[in-house]
Amino acid sequence: MRPLITLLTDFGTADGYVAEMKGVLLSAVPEASIVDLSHEIPPQDVECARLAVARYWRRFPPGTVHLIVVDPGVGSARAPLAVSSDGRFLVGPDNGVLSPSLLAGGSRAVALPVPASAAPTFHGRDVFAPAAAQLAIGAPLDALGTALLEPVIRRTPEARRATDGSVIGEIIAIDRFGNAISNLIAPRGGRVEIAGRSMPIVRTYAEAAVGDLLALVGSSGFVEVAQRDGHAARTLGLTRGAPVTLRAARA
Amino acid sequence: MRPLITLLTDFGTADGYVAEMKGVLLSAVPEASIVDLSHEIPPQDVECARLAVARYWRRFPPGTVHLIVVDPGVGSARAPLAVSSDGRFLVGPDNGVLSPSLLAGGSRAVALPVPASAAPTFHGRDVFAPAAAQLAIGAPLDALGTALLEPVIRRTPEARRATDGSVIGEIIAIDRFGNAISNLIAPRGGRVEIAGRSMPIVRTYAEAAVGDLLALVGSSGFVEVAQRDGHAARTLGLTRGAPVTLRAARA
Amino acid sequence: MRPLITLLTDFGTADGYVAEMKGVLLSAVPEASIVDLSHEIPPQDVECARLAVARYWRRFPPGTVHLIVVDPGVGSARAPLAVSSDGRFLVGPDNGVLSPSLLAGGSRAVALPVPASAAPTFHGRDVFAPAAAQLAIGAPLDALGTALLEPVIRRTPEARRATDGSVIGEIIAIDRFGNAISNLIAPRGGRVEIAGRSMPIVRTYAEAAVGDLLALVGSSGFVEVAQRDGHAARTLGLTRGAPVTLRAARA
Repeated sequence: MRPLITLLTDFGTADGYVAEMKGVLLSAVPEASIVDLSHEIPPQDVECARLAVARYWRRFPPGTVHLIVVDPGVGSARAPLAVSSDGRFLVGPDNGVLSPSLLAGGSRAVALPVPASAAPTFHGRDVFAPAAAQLAIGAPLDALGTALLEPVIRRTPEARRATDGSVIGEIIAIDRFGNAISNLIAPRGGRVEIAGRSMPIVRTYAEAAVGDLLALVGSSGFVEVAQRDGHAARTLGLTRGAPVTLRAARA
Repeated sequence: MRPLITLLTDFGTADGYVAEMKGVLLSAVPEASIVDLSHEIPPQDVECARLAVARYWRRFPPGTVHLIVVDPGVGSARAPLAVSSDGRFLVGPDNGVLSPSLLAGGSRAVALPVPASAAPTFHGRDVFAPAAAQLAIGAPLDALGTALLEPVIRRTPEARRATDGSVIGEIIAIDRFGNAISNLIAPRGGRVEIAGRSMPIVRTYAEAAVGDLLALVGSSGFVEVAQRDGHAARTLGLTRGAPVTLRAARA
Repeated sequence: MRPLITLLTDFGTADGYVAEMKGVLLSAVPEASIVDLSHEIPPQDVECARLAVARYWRRFPPGTVHLIVVDPGVGSARAPLAVSSDGRFLVGPDNGVLSPSLLAGGSRAVALPVPASAAPTFHGRDVFAPAAAQLAIGAPLDALGTALLEPVIRRTPEARRATDGSVIGEIIAIDRFGNAISNLIAPRGGRVEIAGRSMPIVRTYAEAAVGDLLALVGSSGFVEVAQRDGHAARTLGLTRGAPVTLRAARA
């Protein structure tokens, strides 16, 4: 099996930083298959990256190395990490972006050493890519650094139950289509209230008329607010953190 | 030969949806080579995707599987399709985006079943990627679904001849450079009229002075309106559908 | 070893031009590994591309073929080039974009012939990609064209020493994070003056308070002006070419 290395960064591609990282990876592991996941994470948006990681890290085959560089603290005291979790490996900064893998049972993390020659502004090239290459050729996790027992954990905020029985959550992400994704779970349907509007939870976009607002359970299991053939977040003026209420369907 | 799977979507990459699809593909076919074609199709712009597909689908080697997910009707009654055409395979929604392959002689299409477990908002991950993976490992088309005899076909609008002998067409695409691509074919040159301006059809950008407007036959065989070192569509206020007239060169 | 071909263009991806090039490459060399470096170079920005090439061309393993298409002069008299330098190959227009490899000792360049069938607006597909494919399967450079002895060279502008001992340089690039990269080299630290502001050269972003401006030596060895958790170029109104002064640290 070819080694498989995925990349997620907030670097964009035009500046050549990702290109340098790929050169480092392929010089060390010429037979590796490099899979771009995104370089369009908004600059320094650790939360956006964390949610993407939550979506994909476990969908790749065991043995995959996920390289994740969204690293506002580069050069500071924050540790560079390598993680082994459920058969996959993840490499990136200790700022919470790797939390989805760290929260899985049996995960282990090590802090990577920073060589004196590493550019203090570009650990992606000089620390993380070399570590990912090592893992890709089969180096054991423990050979890469020293165990880190309390890595930084970020979690999706939890919704809370109000006294009237409704559940109050918030918008945790806006996607490219303008869907506003909440932290609400609604296995039995119900209605959603947001930005002064109320809408039923339906099953598909197609159940709404063109231009209508709707709510549905999205592909990661959370309630989303959408607009048929429109951009719900723009229409409703929603940003991350906006409150949203779930009311049970009447019995 | 490694299986080759190309991807075209309107998902962007930052939300992690494409990452999930790649995880599904590589878990099913770890030896596959995944080739990104674009994830920057404007959201739900089936026509833009169709024109891109027309450009590339046949340029890849026989056996290539083209996965195409620009799917405003996801979750509705529109069928998910797999197509075999001229030795290539294409997988995507039945909304016309696959038309370039469906119009080729000998093409065959099947409607894919939608498993009950598929997220109604993300057939890319749960229906199309698994079907692409099946084709990539050699499953016969007929094993994937039931024959669909009348798939949705979208065509480039045809230009028409006016009574004065000129040909009246329209702009079908604006590219990243601001070139306005028409549906006009001009094997013998002539002049183009658009937005109150008139310009000769030349052979290369270099035949115009910097800042000048020009017309030429573009790389897909259609007449394009361009501006030397400028953005013709912005300069002329052109959008898709803008009328354009071709007049024969004088004998 | 699989042939390795990297791609850098200013095409974006939505128009399908890059997809066509990939089809040409993979039809000629199905076993090639295609590595996207960027398609988001600003349209026709040869200088941006040249700086990216400088960063990456030598980081890839010997034998790598770098395909680079940022080509405002396509179809004009400018030659299409193939270059051999330090064991790597580069293919692209003779407009200076390949300079980093041409300036290395022992480099050789040939001018590629343009077949009559080539689209005058798309040498990427019809001239450069076929040449890259030839090199990827081991064709000798000299088999591709005739030696070109004086290719166009672009260089990073040199900083100059002022009578008061300071060094006057300029901003040569703004990256996605708003870091303004200069042509100044400061092995012994010092202070930087730009846009009426003065700041010490520090080692990492973390040495500044949130929102503060700072200067540091970036990952390619040049002095950069940055803003902690901000966008320095926007804050200071900097664009490419802005003057910047380096003053030695007091002894």
